[in-house]
Amino acid sequence: MTFTEQLLAHFKKVSDECVLGLSLDCVIFGFYDTHLKVLLLRWKNTNEWCLPGGFIYKNESVDVAANRVLRERTGLDQLFLQQFRLFGDAVRYDREDTWRRQKMAIPFGSGSWPERTISMGYYALVDQTKVMPSADFMSDECCWWDVSDLPSLLYDHKHIIEVALRTLRLQLNWQPIGLNLLPEKFTIPELQRLYEAVLGRLLDARNFHKKIMSLHILTRLDERRTGKAHKSPYLYQFNPENYQKALVNGDLSFV
Amino acid sequence: MTFTEQLLAHFKKVSDECVLGLSLDCVIFGFYDTHLKVLLLRWKNTNEWCLPGGFIYKNESVDVAANRVLRERTGLDQLFLQQFRLFGDAVRYDREDTWRRQKMAIPFGSGSWPERTISMGYYALVDQTKVMPSADFMSDECCWWDVSDLPSLLYDHKHIIEVALRTLRLQLNWQPIGLNLLPEKFTIPELQRLYEAVLGRLLDARNFHKKIMSLHILTRLDERRTGKAHKSPYLYQFNPENYQKALVNGDLSFV
Repeated sequence: MTFTEQLLAHFKKVSDECVLGLSLDCVIFGFYDTHLKVLLLRWKNTNEWCLPGGFIYKNESVDVAANRVLRERTGLDQLFLQQFRLFGDAVRYDREDTWRRQKMAIPFGSGSWPERTISMGYYALVDQTKVMPSADFMSDECCWWDVSDLPSLLYDHKHIIEVALRTLRLQLNWQPIGLNLLPEKFTIPELQRLYEAVLGRLLDARNFHKKIMSLHILTRLDERRTGKAHKSPYLYQFNPENYQKALVNGDLSFV
Repeated sequence: MTFTEQLLAHFKKVSDECVLGLSLDCVIFGFYDTHLKVLLLRWKNTNEWCLPGGFIYKNESVDVAANRVLRERTGLDQLFLQQFRLFGDAVRYDREDTWRRQKMAIPFGSGSWPERTISMGYYALVDQTKVMPSADFMSDECCWWDVSDLPSLLYDHKHIIEVALRTLRLQLNWQPIGLNLLPEKFTIPELQRLYEAVLGRLLDARNFHKKIMSLHILTRLDERRTGKAHKSPYLYQFNPENYQKALVNGDLSFV
């Protein structure tokens, strides 16, 4: 089967078996060292990139579909995907221009493609070193791009990434992040690096230490990080019980 | 026209002119004194209540539709509606039971009603004394119910209200609320009452004062609330510039 035949078969399946007019897009942020990246797919035979996205089966929950679509398109599984925005503008992007940039062999406007698609945005944050993305049949590549240096993006995906990033940064204000993103034992400076990567700015070390400790989500161990000449910072672990409570309750209230 | 005829005409209009399978529901919280209420409609000729909800025209942005639907169904206009969750379960509620409770004169399953509807949830918080809700043709009443004492609700609207309330409480952790909900000049205890109503619990006055002042969103005036015998608390105003900045940036970060 040629790529165009594969694509036509896929379009037909979507149009027969999926909810019409509603799609979903996943913004997967990857954290490694001090860099925040986003996972993108390169559309077959082009230099155009996009987020992993897809459609919802008629009998499938939208949240379940988000996990399935992400798995099918990138190989990533079992992430904590969260809804962040429904992209519902009447005109989201120039469809004909996008079609041309995708080098579609099918004429624009042919077939049963819906005139308008409203898309639910999901996001997740993962430790880049713990996942192995792989491209699907529609893509030549699936890889990480620095959020501050994105390639040419299809659809309105640049906008979707911007909104997701803003949401992730806001989330830092009321939910602790870090568990599953750091080794089991870590130092406060390592946790600070994670926050700095997400926020895109440096934080005051003394202030960070004071505030993170006031949340009571960390347990200091009787161990220190060795291997450094002049100082060995203490190692910490998340207190899973308090951490879960803080996640659910958003217990970082200022009142 | 009988109510059933009106309803059939409305269903036909929706099915001809609207996006299929996607609806929206609005959770409007009202604040007055120390009570948090939610705005509900009583379905015509029944004792069953529901949220104001509706559908999106084919050429209409979903966010614009939310404001229009709320206006058409309750008379409320120009509220700051925010998306909070897409309700996308494959089966959201017992449709046949709901149909029966609505005392529909049309047989269940007839006509072009979609088998499944995915609904976008919006919420807003208003000063109850500043709006005048009115029922639409599908409803006998439009009025406020205490969130802790809700009547019999149609569809999955009890669940939608619970999720909205959780979101509103979380939002307190990273966005100041209060502007447009209090008189232009207010005392700190009055602001504290608003927070207590939303959170559903009492707050420590000294701690609240300290934390709210640390946000730099309030300006103390050279006036005091008069009329009290033993003490006259200072009046405050929101500093609109800092308030907007805090709203946009979620500047209540603990880091």
